[in-house]
Amino acid sequence: MSAARTDAERVELANTALYEAVERGDTVAMGRLWLDDPDAEVSCVHPGWPVLRGRTEVLRSYALIMASTDYIQFFLTDVEVAVAGDTALVTCTENILSGGPSEAEGELGPLVGQLVVATNAFRRVGEEWKVWSHHGSPVLAGRDDEEEDGPEGREGADGPEGA
Amino acid sequence: MSAARTDAERVELANTALYEAVERGDTVAMGRLWLDDPDAEVSCVHPGWPVLRGRTEVLRSYALIMASTDYIQFFLTDVEVAVAGDTALVTCTENILSGGPSEAEGELGPLVGQLVVATNAFRRVGEEWKVWSHHGSPVLAGRDDEEEDGPEGREGADGPEGA
Repeated sequence: MSAARTDAERVELANTALYEAVERGDTVAMGRLWLDDPDAEVSCVHPGWPVLRGRTEVLRSYALIMASTDYIQFFLTDVEVAVAGDTALVTCTENILSGGPSEAEGELGPLVGQLVVATNAFRRVGEEWKVWSHHGSPVLAGRDDEEEDGPEGREGADGPEGA
Repeated sequence: MSAARTDAERVELANTALYEAVERGDTVAMGRLWLDDPDAEVSCVHPGWPVLRGRTEVLRSYALIMASTDYIQFFLTDVEVAVAGDTALVTCTENILSGGPSEAEGELGPLVGQLVVATNAFRRVGEEWKVWSHHGSPVLAGRDDEEEDGPEGREGADGPEGA
């Protein structure tokens, strides 16, 4: 079965592994999952954050996030994989349920739901696909698939969005 | 001079061209700049938006944004290019100044400044680099390069961010 996996299936597994590592708070797995190639520097944008570049800075950011998160679970939906040669792009929606530390010791803080969309780039390294880039961003308003102008003021909320 | 351009320089020019096309409201240029390859579907995330996929949907979104924007200018800073084979990733900060239509006819609405970070993927097609993916997201808080935990509550603002 595993021998018959397509590239797209392998990429999707690598994408899932990225989120599972965050759920487990597994810094060792994170280091293994991210690309380690001096010619192709990794980059990462967490929702609302500026760009982080390089393995050291990116892995450190995950360690900080995982250390400050007592509970986090990702329900990935709308996952699409595009493979071109040795590169793949995954776009998906992260339906996140998370809880930070509570004020009271030993208790979990309130759970928070969050809707994030991500574009993740992967590079093929031998038989494996490594994370080259992650860019996650908050979805600030609902989407109206068929309407020219949604009633929620999607564009008005932030002013006209750029490219 | 142009014959001596490196891949990274060509990619940066393609990246600049993307933003210049938005500034000009040039839908024809947009169609030419974006990848047209049935095996590698394009995708796009505007700040705060969900994922858009496929040339039709992506180009339509730009046409809508450009139609609703009377004035927009991008000052790109912190541009970094990583080239791996026939794929390139550009990360940059978009310092955006834009104005929408005013209530009064013939007048420009108030100018709005916006800070957005982008991860843009490009594919080499012959001698050209085409846009494969754009993901832009608002920077919601300042960055403290050297501090473990910034005072602005960057993580607290949205709950713990995910991968």
